[in-house]
Amino acid sequence: MKILILGGDGYLGWPTALHLSDGGHEVAVLDNFARRGYDFEMGVDSLVPIDTLQARIRAWRDLTGREIACYIGDLTDADFTCHVVREFGPDTIVHFAEQRAAPYSMVDRKHAVYTQVNNVVGTMNVLYAIAEINPDIHLVKLGTMGAYGEPNIDIEEGWLEIEHKGRKDRVLFPKRPGSFYHLSKVHDSHNIEFACRIWGIRATDLNQGIVYGQQTAETALDDRLATRYDYDAVFGTVLNRFVIQSVLGLPLTVYGNGSQVRGIIEIRDTVRCLQLACENPADRGEFRVFNQMTQSLSITQMAETIARVSPEKVSIDHLANPRVEEEGHHYNVVHSGLVDLGLDPHLLSDTLIESLFEITKRFADRVRPEAMVPTVDWRRSASPLGW
Amino acid sequence: MKILILGGDGYLGWPTALHLSDGGHEVAVLDNFARRGYDFEMGVDSLVPIDTLQARIRAWRDLTGREIACYIGDLTDADFTCHVVREFGPDTIVHFAEQRAAPYSMVDRKHAVYTQVNNVVGTMNVLYAIAEINPDIHLVKLGTMGAYGEPNIDIEEGWLEIEHKGRKDRVLFPKRPGSFYHLSKVHDSHNIEFACRIWGIRATDLNQGIVYGQQTAETALDDRLATRYDYDAVFGTVLNRFVIQSVLGLPLTVYGNGSQVRGIIEIRDTVRCLQLACENPADRGEFRVFNQMTQSLSITQMAETIARVSPEKVSIDHLANPRVEEEGHHYNVVHSGLVDLGLDPHLLSDTLIESLFEITKRFADRVRPEAMVPTVDWRRSASPLGW
Repeated sequence: MKILILGGDGYLGWPTALHLSDGGHEVAVLDNFARRGYDFEMGVDSLVPIDTLQARIRAWRDLTGREIACYIGDLTDADFTCHVVREFGPDTIVHFAEQRAAPYSMVDRKHAVYTQVNNVVGTMNVLYAIAEINPDIHLVKLGTMGAYGEPNIDIEEGWLEIEHKGRKDRVLFPKRPGSFYHLSKVHDSHNIEFACRIWGIRATDLNQGIVYGQQTAETALDDRLATRYDYDAVFGTVLNRFVIQSVLGLPLTVYGNGSQVRGIIEIRDTVRCLQLACENPADRGEFRVFNQMTQSLSITQMAETIARVSPEKVSIDHLANPRVEEEGHHYNVVHSGLVDLGLDPHLLSDTLIESLFEITKRFADRVRPEAMVPTVDWRRSASPLGW
Repeated sequence: MKILILGGDGYLGWPTALHLSDGGHEVAVLDNFARRGYDFEMGVDSLVPIDTLQARIRAWRDLTGREIACYIGDLTDADFTCHVVREFGPDTIVHFAEQRAAPYSMVDRKHAVYTQVNNVVGTMNVLYAIAEINPDIHLVKLGTMGAYGEPNIDIEEGWLEIEHKGRKDRVLFPKRPGSFYHLSKVHDSHNIEFACRIWGIRATDLNQGIVYGQQTAETALDDRLATRYDYDAVFGTVLNRFVIQSVLGLPLTVYGNGSQVRGIIEIRDTVRCLQLACENPADRGEFRVFNQMTQSLSITQMAETIARVSPEKVSIDHLANPRVEEEGHHYNVVHSGLVDLGLDPHLLSDTLIESLFEITKRFADRVRPEAMVPTVDWRRSASPLGW
């Protein structure tokens, strides 16, 4: 099928593009390079050097003979968005193209407003493009497990069968997100569910856990195909940051007491989940939700797992939690939808971590340890960004 | 107390300003006149002529000796918003300043995006201004009953005690809004609840029913104090439109079979609810929700009530429903919070309707009947606006 990948230059968008191209699909990527711009703003860079999007696409063609089409522009530009959907004519649109870091959204008012406007308007423009041009297009939209917050009940897959005062209904799972970024995903989900209802379009919302890892079968083929690997306190996700701290012999920094439990997923499973969602589309009018994660671990368990196999002897440091989040909470998540479609999960293992240690060692001289110190404080309305 | 009324030039903002000023509070109004601008776009006008905001304020001073301060500007301009909050120094901010018509938000992509960006960003700027300048300020925010949609369970006041697989939680009531406008209110509520949680601010979210009526004790003092009265298919709410159709001897136009049930409230109760919410603030960190409505009626019941007492003999016409909404649904709403604070509701009565007939007759020559024909179709991604 023809698949358009929005945010196809990013940490996960790029490996997904390669995986779907390798799977025989006709792939196009769209990006505005906002993610590369955030690096300039923060004075950091991916630990693993990444090539330009154009060079990556050329390398993939040279290595495999497969073409990936490329559109450079911004989804908040509705004319551009419509033009691309009309010209490429996708069967499926995979939408990674949002600002995706909670701390970045919590820097100050400007970053909060930017995150919500960028994410919500970009998605609305995609919905309108689908409704106008071809309502049969399947939208596969990236969301986040973090949008659920820490409810005291089990987390179902997007919808909840509810009984109240003797009556029943099926409702969107009530969410309690923990940042203006997470809120933007909740807003998106509400908007998309409404578009399914009024226009009969088909959508799959993927509530993704924290992703770790850096290589997929496709990116590992050649250095020119590498995807980014972030370790800074803003865009670096917790497991990747722990790996880098351990290679450098630095303490693993846990926020608060570390009893917060999070759903996680390995990057190879992410690209496989995207493939399964694309190849098994939602029905017309259906707002389908999957919890895209493979296991739950507390932050302390993640730190202990890394510390146990670390090449350096490392300690675990507890920092005052800069976020407002619950500790010691209930966390039990249903995540069977993608397994039912054929996902065979990779769980966190020594093997995977060791490959991450190798990558980190190779580029250790590129790490700026200062960038790993959290500076964005949820309790303040403005924080400094970066080191 | 010092009360800043955002959207203080509007249908309800202006009568609320007068009622609170009359109640002895020090009142300021803020407006960008967006609502007057929509009239130009649609080629319509309030049935009742309204004076400029400046002239209204002068008339109120001449009649009562009471001053109302006035700020002209846009909440999406964060510098302006902060400046006003800093200069006026309110104890309470009442926030009416949003695009408030579902059909307007459903015209096309531009109107949908405008509605969500205007409403969400304006509210975020207010939240940041409160957090930065004085987190003790009580935010009283107007929402809508329509944001709930038509759940098959009873509608509680904003929060829902839930039991699932043997565990319990208290969650935001899961909503299923029926337009991009209603969605913007759901987004606002999520953002405000989060701000209460992280910054400890205090907020009251008022999910208001469909308002009818045109006069309050204060606006009735003098023609120069009149508030607007809309009858067009975009901004005219259903009961007000039925009154005008009946005075003109036109059929009352019901969308669909008319079994849709809606919560309603009279304008005098609206201003009283606002006073009660302001004078009984939420606690620090509390996100308090009231369902601001006094009774539930089906659209058919509303039409029959008007037809029964109409000065002209009128029929009831059923139009194909331009909206996507359920008919024949369950609708049972808890709305005791404001009654507990002291609200003594006015229910829909012949007396009230007769006063509306008088007003309508006085200005009947200003009606453009074409503007009452619905043109915005929920099932299309773009519709013509207005007649």
